[in-house]
Amino acid sequence: VRDNRARWALEEAGLQYDVFLVDDETLDGNGYRAWNPFGQVPAYRDDGIELFESGAILLHLAQTTEALAPADPADFARMTAWVIAALSSVEPYVQNYVRLDVFHADQTWVSSYRPIAEAELRRRLAALARWLDGREFLEARFTVGDIAMSSVLRDLTESGILNDYPAVAAYLERCIARPAFKRAIDAQLEGYRSNAPARTIPE
Amino acid sequence: VRDNRARWALEEAGLQYDVFLVDDETLDGNGYRAWNPFGQVPAYRDDGIELFESGAILLHLAQTTEALAPADPADFARMTAWVIAALSSVEPYVQNYVRLDVFHADQTWVSSYRPIAEAELRRRLAALARWLDGREFLEARFTVGDIAMSSVLRDLTESGILNDYPAVAAYLERCIARPAFKRAIDAQLEGYRSNAPARTIPE
Repeated sequence: VRDNRARWALEEAGLQYDVFLVDDETLDGNGYRAWNPFGQVPAYRDDGIELFESGAILLHLAQTTEALAPADPADFARMTAWVIAALSSVEPYVQNYVRLDVFHADQTWVSSYRPIAEAELRRRLAALARWLDGREFLEARFTVGDIAMSSVLRDLTESGILNDYPAVAAYLERCIARPAFKRAIDAQLEGYRSNAPARTIPE
Repeated sequence: VRDNRARWALEEAGLQYDVFLVDDETLDGNGYRAWNPFGQVPAYRDDGIELFESGAILLHLAQTTEALAPADPADFARMTAWVIAALSSVEPYVQNYVRLDVFHADQTWVSSYRPIAEAELRRRLAALARWLDGREFLEARFTVGDIAMSSVLRDLTESGILNDYPAVAAYLERCIARPAFKRAIDAQLEGYRSNAPARTIPE
């Protein structure tokens, strides 16, 4: 789930953080809904702020340290555009495509919808490949824009479709080779493994 | 198209702006792709910045004037969450639902997919209705978060589905009753009416 995006940014920044897992009952409760109106994860809280939406959490953390973002306002805005592009111009098409297998593989309508979803996704991947040609990251340096984009692209790994877009596949590899990503994913998987009864959000 | 979101914010802020319409050839050209990698509209440029993604343009404009956003950083971050929620947690489900009629009405698989798309959309609308109950806007005052959310919701008008969510329908009405919205939409429609040969982006 999308909490890994926030974990990754926190690891890149070297910030201390606590994780609270939540159960379905909590997600639907008024307390959590006041924090995250859509009852999703992640939600984030620090001394000054209470936030929902992984993209907003990334942009907030980006303001706290140059480990995550350029200081120049124009470069910061450009990074903001990439965070939103990942979530709004790429992720919806990634999800429409991959969930055809995950959720609906046994339904006959899927075979009719698949070519449409695939064509829409390929249009975005081709645009991204064109942009990434000759670039190491989306802009001049690694930022939370890359955390957002590579996290979105990771969901395509099993499908194999990125084999057709080597510039995108290589970009994804560069991003997830970062030690902070490894630490974040290890911590996330440890949460699944231990799988203790979910703790509720502290009031 | 999504340029209306930027126009609306500019009208709310009382900022002067010029509009350049672009044709398909321009959208696919290297010059425009360097500006907007996905070849979409809108793109935005001012003295200090070159941006793509309507959400990023809204957040950039929000930093320039308190007409669009609260000055307090925690409130600004909360507004950022709403902009991203509109584009990432609501718009994909709105679009999956409405385009069933627009693009694919003649295809038989649509009738199988419709209940799935509708259920996913209704989950978000119910969450939004729960949040909006007793509120005038998403947070304590009108912000670009409301521009993003109401712009996304507008695409549901024809479907009639908002009749089932009176708090959401009333919220949308409040937003689009604003004089700045009317000015933006009039300017946008005037662009369609005059429909002169598209002007290319100035180099």
